[in-house]
Parts: sequence; C-alpha cells; structure tokens
Amino acid sequence: MEKNYSTQMEAAKMGIVTPEMKIVAKKEYRTEEEIRELVAQGKVTICANKNHKCLDPEGVGSMLRTKINVNLGVSRDCKDYDIEMKKVQAAVDMGAEAIMDLSSHGNTIPFRRKLTSECPAMIGTVPVYDSVIHYQRDLATLTAKDLIDVVRLHAEDGVDFVTLHCGITRHTIDQIKKHKRKMNIVSRGGSLIFAWMCMTGNENPFYEYYDEILDICREYDVTISLGDACRPGCLADASDVCQIEELVRLGELTKRAWAKDVQVMVEGPGHMPMDQIEANMKIQQSICMGAPFYVLGPLVTDIAPGYDHITSAIGGAIAAASGAAFLCYVTPAEHLALPNVDDVKQGIIASKIAAHAADIAKKIPHAMDRDNEMADARRTFRWDDQWAVSLDPETAKTIRDSRAPEHDDTCSMCGKFCAVRSMNKALEGEYIDIL
Amino acid sequence: MEKNYSTQMEAAKMGIVTPEMKIVAKKEYRTEEEIRELVAQGKVTICANKNHKCLDPEGVGSMLRTKINVNLGVSRDCKDYDIEMKKVQAAVDMGAEAIMDLSSHGNTIPFRRKLTSECPAMIGTVPVYDSVIHYQRDLATLTAKDLIDVVRLHAEDGVDFVTLHCGITRHTIDQIKKHKRKMNIVSRGGSLIFAWMCMTGNENPFYEYYDEILDICREYDVTISLGDACRPGCLADASDVCQIEELVRLGELTKRAWAKDVQVMVEGPGHMPMDQIEANMKIQQSICMGAPFYVLGPLVTDIAPGYDHITSAIGGAIAAASGAAFLCYVTPAEHLALPNVDDVKQGIIASKIAAHAADIAKKIPHAMDRDNEMADARRTFRWDDQWAVSLDPETAKTIRDSRAPEHDDTCSMCGKFCAVRSMNKALEGEYIDIL
Repeated sequence: MEKNYSTQMEAAKMGIVTPEMKIVAKKEYRTEEEIRELVAQGKVTICANKNHKCLDPEGVGSMLRTKINVNLGVSRDCKDYDIEMKKVQAAVDMGAEAIMDLSSHGNTIPFRRKLTSECPAMIGTVPVYDSVIHYQRDLATLTAKDLIDVVRLHAEDGVDFVTLHCGITRHTIDQIKKHKRKMNIVSRGGSLIFAWMCMTGNENPFYEYYDEILDICREYDVTISLGDACRPGCLADASDVCQIEELVRLGELTKRAWAKDVQVMVEGPGHMPMDQIEANMKIQQSICMGAPFYVLGPLVTDIAPGYDHITSAIGGAIAAASGAAFLCYVTPAEHLALPNVDDVKQGIIASKIAAHAADIAKKIPHAMDRDNEMADARRTFRWDDQWAVSLDPETAKTIRDSRAPEHDDTCSMCGKFCAVRSMNKALEGEYIDIL
Repeated sequence: MEKNYSTQMEAAKMGIVTPEMKIVAKKEYRTEEEIRELVAQGKVTICANKNHKCLDPEGVGSMLRTKINVNLGVSRDCKDYDIEMKKVQAAVDMGAEAIMDLSSHGNTIPFRRKLTSECPAMIGTVPVYDSVIHYQRDLATLTAKDLIDVVRLHAEDGVDFVTLHCGITRHTIDQIKKHKRKMNIVSRGGSLIFAWMCMTGNENPFYEYYDEILDICREYDVTISLGDACRPGCLADASDVCQIEELVRLGELTKRAWAKDVQVMVEGPGHMPMDQIEANMKIQQSICMGAPFYVLGPLVTDIAPGYDHITSAIGGAIAAASGAAFLCYVTPAEHLALPNVDDVKQGIIASKIAAHAADIAKKIPHAMDRDNEMADARRTFRWDDQWAVSLDPETAKTIRDSRAPEHDDTCSMCGKFCAVRSMNKALEGEYIDIL
C-alpha cells in the first residue's frame, strides 16, 4: 500500500490514523483518535523511519508510559561488535524501547544496518560522531556538507531518530567562555560541534542548514532529537544561562520542524540538584510547546561514580513524574569506562524502575497492575508468581535460593518472625508459633 | 562530672548545652544554641544512651544532614555473628550513622553489648523481637511485664533508640480486618504485637504501659522510635486509614514523651507511590509537631525484588528532600533473604546517595562541597582526586581500571571523542584531534 503522507505528523494533521498509531493506541490504552491528535500536536512522537521495516512502534509523550533508551556501540578502546550485539539482545529482552548506536570506531555501517533490519526497538544515532569515522578525516577538515551527508546516510539506513546539536551557535562560544562553567560542555556531540566551530570559524551547520536537514528528516520520517549541547555536566552548572538559552533556541527549532511535519524530541539534563528537576520539566514543556522531553539522567549528585545508575534513577523518576517522556539509561560505568554487558543490564533495570515508578505517580492507565499482582502473591507466599511479575525474575530468585529458609512460608530474613506469616495466622484465628 | 539532667531534651529545656550538642553543632555548621533550641523543641534528637560511652553523637532532624541506619543481626537461618560484625565494620567505614541490631536468634546479649561498648554509631533495637528469644518462650506465653522488662534490659545495655510499636491498639484488630488491606501488617514488630493481642486478648502493653516505658527511657536517655506497625507493605495500601490513624496516635504519644523529656523519632512508610511521598512527610511534620521522621524506604514500586535498594533510594531521596530526617537503608535482598555483606554495602551506598542528594536539595550547609570538588577534578582529569571525593573510591577505580583507555586524558567510554578533552583544547585555542 502506497503511503500518501510523508511523516506520522503529516498523516496525523491530515486526519489519517496510521498503522503505527493503531499499535501505539492499543499499547497505551488510548483511542486511535487520541493518539492521532497528540501526534498532530507534536506532543507524542512515533519514531518510525520508513526504512526500519521490523520496528515495533512506540509512542513517546509525557502522557504515555515512560520509555527508556539504551546507549551502546563500540569505541576505540572497546571495539568488539559481538559484545555490542549481546547488549542489544539484553536491551530488547529487558524491554528497552529504544537503542542508540553511539559507535565511534571502525566501519560503523554494518552494525547500524543490522540494527535497523533486525531490531524491533527504535534506533537512534548521533551522526556527528559517525562523520569523523565515516570519512576517516579529522574534524577540522570536514565541511558542513560532509556533516549533513552523514545525516542523510543515517536516514537512508533506517535510523528512527537522530540527535543533532542544532541549538548552539557561534554566540555559544562567547557564552561558554564568559560564563565559566565548572564543566563547560559535556555533551559529546555538542563538544564536537563546538570544536568544529572553533577550528573552522564557521557557524554550526546543523543550525545554519536546519531547513535542509528538515527536508531529509521529512523524506524518511526521521525524528529529530534536538541535542542539548549545554546540558549541565555537574550540579553547579545546572539551570544556568547556557542551558536555558539553548533550550529557548530548541523551542524555536521545534516550531520550525513542526511546520514541515518533522517530528521532534528535545533532549535535556544532565546533572542537576533534585530540587531543580520539576521546574526544568515544566519550563521545557512550556518553551517547547509540549514536545516530548528526553532526559539524560538527571544525575542528582556528582560524587557517586560506579553508582550513576542509581543517581540517575532518582533524577529520572522525578523527571518523568514531572513531565519527561523518555529516559536515557545511565550505567554504573558512566564517567569511568565503556559499559560491559552487566553494566548495561544494571542500567536498564534502574531506568525501568524509574520509568515505572513515574508512570504510577502519573497515573498512567494500568501502570500499577503488576504491583498489585505482586502484593497479592507476597501475601499468599506464591513465590513463582512473585518472580513472574518481577522486573528481573532471575536475580530475585537467585538471591532467595542462595540463602534458602528453613520454612517455605518465610524467607531467611525473618524466618518465623515473618510479619506476613504472623498476620495470616492471626487473621485466621490460628496460634502463632514464633520460636 | 555528674550530670544534673536526665536526658538531652531535659538539658536543652533547662538551657544546658551538653557535650553531645557541642559535637553535633560543629558537625552541622550550626551554633550550639541553635542545636540546644532544636533539641528542646523535639525537632532534633541526639540518640545517646548514658551507657553507650564510645558513641560519636549525631543529631537527627529534618534541618540537619540526613542520617542513615543499617539493619543487621542474625536470624535462625543465618546465624553467624562474625559475619554480622563484618557488616558492622562495613557500615561504620561507609559512614552509616546508626545501626539497628534486629537479631532474632540465639543469645543476643553479647552482640548487643559488644555494639554499645565498641561501636561509635547510634545503636537501635526492637525489643519485642528479642523478648521471644530472651525468654525462650513462645509469644503467647509472655506477659506485658516480660515485654517491658526487655525494654529495660536494652536500656541498661546502652541502646540509644528502641523501636516500640505503641501506636496500635485492640481497635487496630478490627480496623485491619474491616479495611482488607492487600498486605495487612508488614512491620515485623507490629505483627508480633498484633499477634500477641489476638492470642492473649490483652491491650498492646507498649500502649497500655506507655508511662512506665517513658520512665525507663528517661532514666537512660533512650530515644523512643515510635514504630509504624501499619506502614504500607505495598503501593495499594499506601496512605490508607490504617496508616494515617496510627500516625495520629503517634503524634499524641510524641507529646506525652516530650512531657517527660523523652526524645522521640517517628517511623514511617513503607511502600508508596512517588506522588504521595511529599504529602506524607508534610502531614507527619504537622501531626507530630516536627519530631524527626525515620522512614523505611519508601519503596516506589513493588515489582523490583533484587533491586529494592534502588526503589528505596528513589523514595528515600524524595522523602528526605520533603522533610524526613533519617533513612533506614534497604538492601537488594529485601523481601528475599537476609542480606549478606555485599548486600549491606549496596544498601548503604544507595541510602547515602539518597541522603546526600536530598541534603543538596534542602540546601544543607556545605552539602555540595564534594560535588564541586568532583566537578573540578573531572574537568582537569585528576583521577585520584575524583576517587578521593567519591562515595566508593574502590569501586569507581576498579571499573575504570578494568577497561583502561589508550589515552590517560580520556576513558574507554569515549576515547578521543571525550567532550571534556575537546572542550579543554578548544577553550585553549588548540587543535582538536579526534581520529
């Protein structure tokens, strides 16, 4: 069947309910018309490149279930693609809705194409990373056209969303120098664009040629994830003028994308004290007119390297409960090393916990169903049913089995002091033996 | 020097600044007079039994640094006291301010006395657990006097705070039956009192003989931690009438304790959806007139057994930022097994992260100093200085070293794509080589 629309957003504006919208509506317990209307308004994106044929579509929006993204990809120091495919499998198995391939070494094409031909999750990339690799030329030698051509290549390859740091300009160079942040720019893509501007003397090509980029994205229905180059890299830099000024520009760029029916997500912080998170979410919602907010954290303290899956689970849960739609996972290896398979798993679980806790707080339909099943299974000591509704059944079962209790209606934590056991007996009028 | 006061609170009311208050004032960057006033008002407790001579005193209050507690102790299934002493050492090394000995097997006296004679952290217990063990008689055979005598024994042994479930009464039996909670009562001590009331037909002795208990606590300056028998054991039970009615009674009991100069903490939830946490903290503050709130979680979802250190770090951070003063750690083994030494460590780190993140949000003086040092060390690639201000230096260093990068001014995550490296070079006007 020939499509008579270019993007999900165009279809939505034309009143067409796409097959992807139908699937999203079903998953989210919403009517198809509700989803169509939200996509038309830009409040929900369905990142679905026309060339990603095996995609199981998902909607991203603050009123839907919070989605999570898993970053992976090789680096110069860790370049085994087989390990990366293991991470992909783990991510899909554990319910990640998106995977970003951030590879920065070697021949990146086969892995990217493998992802979009085999993986049902949304696939994202940051084309500027790949540009240096793709041309095998150093950054300063690349032209604006070179950089934009890589965006086109990724679009043709079926990438569903691309992070483009369109929101910084030459003015940002002075801003960063003047403002004397503690961490300057910690966005990898943002720093590359910043470095490119410094070395070439040119304007940010993703800003200067934004209309050309929109045409590419429109053609393949690639969602633009507007990168936040100036996201705070430490608590002290949070909510400063560099960050907020860029956000204002991202709001303008959102409007321009929507005028061409290109779907948009907006990326956000970063490192941030807990008490600033809700305000940041609200400001983004107003400045960017409800475009889905995709947050990288936020990490609520800087002093826990090795545990940044936890610092970001705290921040991510608060962010999502306050309006963020999409959480980028953070692994225990953040700030230290490329994550290994176990780090990826720990990062995914922590993000899933944050997303799920936020969905309950936001009263997303049916979000608490599994929690209620768990409570019933706990009260009645149905251990297998507890594992069945657990986020990670294997780990839970392994812990229990490693220190098995004497009595099966208890665990080794409390033994016969178990409150659940005592209460069940007490409420049945039975004698409660403790000793 | 003979003390002319019985408790820290009495001293404070008399205008006396105790040695303990001086130490707390220094640690908290407050004046001695401020601390004295807060102790007099009951808004800060300094849990300091007169017989705990090696105590390094800490203040617990919502306007002070958030403190954390580590539960340990043997059970019938896990009864090795050497392992428990390893947990004690780990807890003290990692900065836990309190340790609760929840032993429920064997001869509990030597371990408890070892704690109060050697351990500088505040020591807490739940005497009702110990009563069954102490007398080696089953629960139904114990008298009210038996139960109260164990409180006296713990007071004499130097325990700084005791959890007593004074807030449930015979009325609670009907309440729990009528209300049909999913998880009834999950407080171990609460369920024992409930079971005892059901089997004996008597009133809760900790409620009926509360004045006698206050006299014991006054004599040794034992802080009463008013147990929350009806804390929700699943999200569905959160903020229900059972929980709130008990809280109201705990407020009344707080007032009665203060009238006898006995220090009080109030225990709280529990399992709770994120969006209910702040309201619960505010209600406790008003109902209990600012008495420090000691929360057990809150766990923000029920479906993550194996990861409840994370579900409770999210809830604990929000709770502490909203007014809770004291966080009880939760380990990955919660709901599954008695925690082993590594579980204890994971639980402590997660709680410390939650407490620290909340302190920053609450703008506790100097709370963000280490975060700022970390940011400076990160910008300048001073790895050893990063470890020095980390919550767990060894883990952070191990992760980095396990996947060492080719270039020392990078890590294996990004290699020469490192944003910090690129920005440092760009701001110095240097050429940025990426390839």
